[in-house]
Amino acid sequence: MSQRKICLTIAYDGTDFCGWQIQKRGERTVQEEMEKALTVMHKQPVAITAAGRTDSGVHAAGQTAHFTTTLGGIPTEKFPPALNALLPRDVRVIGAREVPEGFHARFDARQRRYKYYIKTGYPPLPWQQRYCTYNRREPELEGLNRLAAVLTGTHDFTSFCALGDPSESKIRRIDTSIFYCEREMLVYAISGNAFLWKMVRTIVGTLLRMEEEGMGRKELIQLRDAGDRTEAFATAPPRGLYLHKVVYDD
Amino acid sequence: MSQRKICLTIAYDGTDFCGWQIQKRGERTVQEEMEKALTVMHKQPVAITAAGRTDSGVHAAGQTAHFTTTLGGIPTEKFPPALNALLPRDVRVIGAREVPEGFHARFDARQRRYKYYIKTGYPPLPWQQRYCTYNRREPELEGLNRLAAVLTGTHDFTSFCALGDPSESKIRRIDTSIFYCEREMLVYAISGNAFLWKMVRTIVGTLLRMEEEGMGRKELIQLRDAGDRTEAFATAPPRGLYLHKVVYDD
Repeated sequence: MSQRKICLTIAYDGTDFCGWQIQKRGERTVQEEMEKALTVMHKQPVAITAAGRTDSGVHAAGQTAHFTTTLGGIPTEKFPPALNALLPRDVRVIGAREVPEGFHARFDARQRRYKYYIKTGYPPLPWQQRYCTYNRREPELEGLNRLAAVLTGTHDFTSFCALGDPSESKIRRIDTSIFYCEREMLVYAISGNAFLWKMVRTIVGTLLRMEEEGMGRKELIQLRDAGDRTEAFATAPPRGLYLHKVVYDD
Repeated sequence: MSQRKICLTIAYDGTDFCGWQIQKRGERTVQEEMEKALTVMHKQPVAITAAGRTDSGVHAAGQTAHFTTTLGGIPTEKFPPALNALLPRDVRVIGAREVPEGFHARFDARQRRYKYYIKTGYPPLPWQQRYCTYNRREPELEGLNRLAAVLTGTHDFTSFCALGDPSESKIRRIDTSIFYCEREMLVYAISGNAFLWKMVRTIVGTLLRMEEEGMGRKELIQLRDAGDRTEAFATAPPRGLYLHKVVYDD
């Protein structure tokens, strides 16, 4: 029977999920919902592997994940509507493409892009609550961006990584690190080759706090190079964070 | 003890509520959450009366509701933060003003404004799902507005009212009835002195369907003047509907 490897692009509202990865305790996860839908379609168990294991409460606009199908009769572009008919409404498959047999959604990803939404000034309205964090104070955009620029380049990000992260090397390459305004929201966009556990949220929490305390580039460079998580500030909550895009070589 | 009447402006995400009004079956309602919070604040039962009883799943950006307080020591502008600290995150009090003793949120309302959001073309993303309905086909805006204009003025709206509506007179005055585009959404805005049960959703369902079927003003006028609900088309789902604003004489 002929096999095809397919890479899906998936969007989800992470609010009611315990993250991407299947949990042993049987909590609701995106991977589990995806595998349930694929298993119904294939009438046999199908496993799926994502580019990134988003944490509990984190959203995705462009998570990617691969699986192998034996359903020769279904064109690749029919997988999104077929899966969406089986999935709960907080997960949507928004794209599908056939990939080479050796493709791996996680190991082949060249760049990951995240966005973090912060409502400032007036508190979030009920329909914004699930999708941003709140900062009553309006930070100064130029000051934030002077700090944010310190993180681009290749550095050891131990200072911005949760203590339980199992990665051997904490060295990562950051390509973009900027704040901008989008409608009523302050947005932080960060892209890089890969990210450590809770790294984006630790960076957001730290940059916002340092700007508020009037700390400058010098202090942030010191903190970055200290290689000690206890130096950084509190991790920002998951509800503001979106895995925006995963980039591959084409 | 001195009493003050206060009118609150309230926003809520209606998705997880069985509407505004307290249900005998004890389901989750906005009124119940409001009264619970007011009762905690006042250390005694406090009742609240809204301008409109939104249905299950319907949202509000500007519901209004009045109550009487005996808490002389709390300035009116402190009620929103105090209540928000006690309320669940899908209800927010966004304004408060003192009103005369004879004020009534429902009977004194001069105009109610609703908006209905319709995603067309590409299906809604997970974070849009709770806040719009979906129409794969992109309707023709001019055609929709030719139909929508038929509903302005003072008419008997029996044709657009759920069968269980208890109102003696079904005559209502409609001031605005237009479709427009807002970002990726098609929006229907309607305002008038008052609305019958499910009237906005029946109008939205009917206008969209008539435009799709190529029906014109003449057929809509006939339907409007038939005085028979069975002539109109299916009611649009609640998740696209927002009670946008309630207007009073100042």
